[in-house]
Amino acid sequence: MKHQEGLTTYLASFIEEIVSSGVTEVVISPGSRSTPIAMLLMEHPKVHTYINIDERSAAFFALGLAKQMRRPAAVLCTSGTAAANYFPAIAEARISRVPLIVLTADRPHELREVGAPQAIDQLHLYGKHVKWFAEMPVPEIGEEVLRFVKATAARAVSHAEQAPAGPVHINFPLREPLIPRLEPSPFSLEEGAKRLNTVQGKLMLSEEEIKDLIEPLKGIEKGLIVCGVIDEPGFAEAVLMLSKKLGYPVLADPLSQLRSGFFQGDDIIDNYDSIFKDAKIAAELKPEAVIRFGGMPVSKPLTLLLKEHDDILHIVVDGGNGWRDPLKMATHMVNCDEKAFCMQMAGQLNEVKESNWLHKWKEINRITTETIINIMEAEQNMDEGKVVMELVKQLPENSTVFVGNSMPIRDIDTFYHFNQKNIRIMANRGANGIDGVVSSALGASVYAEPLFLIIGDLSFFHDMNGLLAAKMHHLNINIILINNNGGGIFSFLPQAKEPKHFETLFGTPTDLNFEHAARLYDGRYAKVQNWDDFHSAVSQALEWKGLNVVEVPTNRNLNVQAHRKMWNQVSQEISDYLNGDEA
Amino acid sequence: MKHQEGLTTYLASFIEEIVSSGVTEVVISPGSRSTPIAMLLMEHPKVHTYINIDERSAAFFALGLAKQMRRPAAVLCTSGTAAANYFPAIAEARISRVPLIVLTADRPHELREVGAPQAIDQLHLYGKHVKWFAEMPVPEIGEEVLRFVKATAARAVSHAEQAPAGPVHINFPLREPLIPRLEPSPFSLEEGAKRLNTVQGKLMLSEEEIKDLIEPLKGIEKGLIVCGVIDEPGFAEAVLMLSKKLGYPVLADPLSQLRSGFFQGDDIIDNYDSIFKDAKIAAELKPEAVIRFGGMPVSKPLTLLLKEHDDILHIVVDGGNGWRDPLKMATHMVNCDEKAFCMQMAGQLNEVKESNWLHKWKEINRITTETIINIMEAEQNMDEGKVVMELVKQLPENSTVFVGNSMPIRDIDTFYHFNQKNIRIMANRGANGIDGVVSSALGASVYAEPLFLIIGDLSFFHDMNGLLAAKMHHLNINIILINNNGGGIFSFLPQAKEPKHFETLFGTPTDLNFEHAARLYDGRYAKVQNWDDFHSAVSQALEWKGLNVVEVPTNRNLNVQAHRKMWNQVSQEISDYLNGDEA
Repeated sequence: MKHQEGLTTYLASFIEEIVSSGVTEVVISPGSRSTPIAMLLMEHPKVHTYINIDERSAAFFALGLAKQMRRPAAVLCTSGTAAANYFPAIAEARISRVPLIVLTADRPHELREVGAPQAIDQLHLYGKHVKWFAEMPVPEIGEEVLRFVKATAARAVSHAEQAPAGPVHINFPLREPLIPRLEPSPFSLEEGAKRLNTVQGKLMLSEEEIKDLIEPLKGIEKGLIVCGVIDEPGFAEAVLMLSKKLGYPVLADPLSQLRSGFFQGDDIIDNYDSIFKDAKIAAELKPEAVIRFGGMPVSKPLTLLLKEHDDILHIVVDGGNGWRDPLKMATHMVNCDEKAFCMQMAGQLNEVKESNWLHKWKEINRITTETIINIMEAEQNMDEGKVVMELVKQLPENSTVFVGNSMPIRDIDTFYHFNQKNIRIMANRGANGIDGVVSSALGASVYAEPLFLIIGDLSFFHDMNGLLAAKMHHLNINIILINNNGGGIFSFLPQAKEPKHFETLFGTPTDLNFEHAARLYDGRYAKVQNWDDFHSAVSQALEWKGLNVVEVPTNRNLNVQAHRKMWNQVSQEISDYLNGDEA
Repeated sequence: MKHQEGLTTYLASFIEEIVSSGVTEVVISPGSRSTPIAMLLMEHPKVHTYINIDERSAAFFALGLAKQMRRPAAVLCTSGTAAANYFPAIAEARISRVPLIVLTADRPHELREVGAPQAIDQLHLYGKHVKWFAEMPVPEIGEEVLRFVKATAARAVSHAEQAPAGPVHINFPLREPLIPRLEPSPFSLEEGAKRLNTVQGKLMLSEEEIKDLIEPLKGIEKGLIVCGVIDEPGFAEAVLMLSKKLGYPVLADPLSQLRSGFFQGDDIIDNYDSIFKDAKIAAELKPEAVIRFGGMPVSKPLTLLLKEHDDILHIVVDGGNGWRDPLKMATHMVNCDEKAFCMQMAGQLNEVKESNWLHKWKEINRITTETIINIMEAEQNMDEGKVVMELVKQLPENSTVFVGNSMPIRDIDTFYHFNQKNIRIMANRGANGIDGVVSSALGASVYAEPLFLIIGDLSFFHDMNGLLAAKMHHLNINIILINNNGGGIFSFLPQAKEPKHFETLFGTPTDLNFEHAARLYDGRYAKVQNWDDFHSAVSQALEWKGLNVVEVPTNRNLNVQAHRKMWNQVSQEISDYLNGDEA
């Protein structure tokens, strides 16, 4: 009984402290060694648990949950390879700055590295891919130990949340027997039961430092604000205020959350990817200063443009101290909270600026939007870009769209235009893997409705196991499955010109009939061959609850051709404008 | 062109050297950064490539291949979370001593930790879970560099093979453009092209050291030889020779490969799991000496018996220097190749010993087999143990049976008896995960036919993606899917007595109709409700090529009850014999 009492008090203390630190969502994978933690989590009245049998999917599910909620979610698994399955989601969470509390049960010290079953070395299991690792002591009773347990719990949550947010790993060696006491409840649950209150500071600049940054910007008309992956409430308003003061257009990646919202989008440029496709146009639009926020935007033409000019002011602002400058073009690396930076800068800049530069940008952006819309309206084929445009038309206000990597995120970049429906775009743009996307979207769907996932067939396949969560937890998700039967992105890359081995290594057609996958998880399934069918299927998906899969068969080659043709026409229209403009 | 030439010569040298070191099987996952390695591997006439889209499955597929062939297989993937997906299979390979060559493409140094896309920190990515890690230089031409590349290739294979065999990781930073030259062929391919020849030594004892180990065994009649997980050709013959000389019975785990073969099985005890279930009988069979080989046997009653007796000679022999003594009962830790140990010991022992002890063991084992057979022959329900017995009846000579973890491996332990069909039993008994089992079996199936996989529903679900390999590579596999709709093993564990949360946390019924899964991968599917159906389905599976899924619905509760009842009767029969024997 002493063992059980120690086990229970110790683990209940930990759980109580993470819960009062704000962790209420826990994704649990079944296992034996983790039994007491799992049972106590089930027992805590404030904890929502999600059983997920495949640990890889479980961790991505938690990632999606945490990303959507903008606060930490936890995962729990047993010892052994179970824990290794968390690795992809952890690597993604680290780079995309998603707070995760990773709890792993472990064999106690005497069963490590001695050939005991289901024992792998779990110390620092995820290496540098977690922000913090703590090995817990074997459960015991004692005032100091319990204070340590509570402090560690609070600390884990704090480390996960502190910018840059990310995953932390706590490893629990547990001895048998593994059954905790449940009656009477081991939780005290009084208000104010939280032992250690944590307060999170942010990186901020002094007025002087801000002044020094404004100085070189003075007199520069041709500036660009580039917003990459960033998801902070209030950032949109702050950066738009700064842009007004500077008179710089805001090039907004779809994951900057600037392409949709209840704010004015006048200065937002959403077509730079298509605009910069033409090198001559890109050269004409050479900026003299760039202020960049967030992770690198998805657009390759933008990247190439930024890399072109070594002789301009290039300010990178990062509240997470991440040194995010893959181009090595930064002239100023500013470690400062992004929202604070914008507000401080805007506060010191008095006038609102109007400029030819800004006007030209807006015109080019408008022309590009019109051209793309005109071409796509006439498109009869099931074009992957048009899928984005047609879907957006049907989205209700406050929808969430989770976007797969590889082609879908690029199509969103090109074809998703500013709107005021307050749509939230989400994606796993840390390591940009095609893995775990289904589970991440399902995690996000817990508190986001309606939620659409746009995903390619290979990425859908990669995390098909994730769909079990939809069935087990009665989640509502509408999956637009773009099936080009293989790896569509490679058709846009240099290897497409090397026909030898191309289809085997990169095309990789799987010829899967995904209707079986939808049926396996009790999902509704529709395959659409034309745009009328597509609209009906999306409407029905919006009406029905549960898992809806709308499969859109597309053709990799036609898709590349159509997009190249469209970009040529965009370039032509912009050139005409620029020539007229200059004449 | 200089870049392409450097890239090509450098990578072709590496590939040529691993191939001439014996690596011919490479599992490739599609990706961009890995393009030149993938294309060159496809181009090498001696390399067999297997495309596998899900990297987690890919690595387990390679593990199964390597395990079956008893030589290294390689995997290749692109940068980012792709590589993290290899982690579970790598952790398993490390503990179960399977040689794997893990090749990962990486971003070059200037794109690391600067927010570049698809870049995670891949240096020492798998931590202590690989035997060796090497970071390669960025490809360049130069005599010393090329010698280094070839030496690293040979070294990687050697490290992977050297006891204890295991995974090694080689990371290749590659710069764009990523297309190698294919014409003319970059491979020289002359016989003898191998640059660095490696010679693997084994741990061996001197005659004196052997003599010192024989000394304390002299005069001990009640000895046991315990063979756990070990898969070395010739070991069976060697250990049986030793057992004859010592007069000790050989307690053989199913993964010792001692339960089937063309050798005599007189001294092999295959029922110790059932025998030791009764504590009183176990006490009566207390040994005075134990010699143990291989990884820990699956049997918990055996483990408990071995842990009971601190006052006996306990010799652990391990050619991989693994300190495999989770019980902490060893009196002698012998770091010596197991086969060499047996042969040296047997060589110094002159007579063949007969003893009452050995006679008693054989009788008890015989009685147990008879009892189990009698009970199971009468069983009408779809009992999980009986599945093993009925399947074995139908297995052709030289079949391979891959066994899932959790319940199937325990059922094999209890219900699989010595036979001379030369059946090879395989399982992932390093970390004992339920993950990756389908892929491991499919990897094994490449060169093993017929191959049966016995697997539970949760484990089958966990690696369902692995089935794509069956479809894409036209593999032949017969899957006996034991569907008890959840985690059957937990019904045998203490938490089964705690009904609160049990079904949610441990039972975890998924209610999946697996026919959809079989159909998704173009597999044949049969659900069997009685033994006649079962036999027909197995016969048909043996005739048909491709993927066959035979689903056996079972009942977790009935299964526990039936097995407990059977063990009670076994104990009764043995007690009767022992009482009569002693009378």
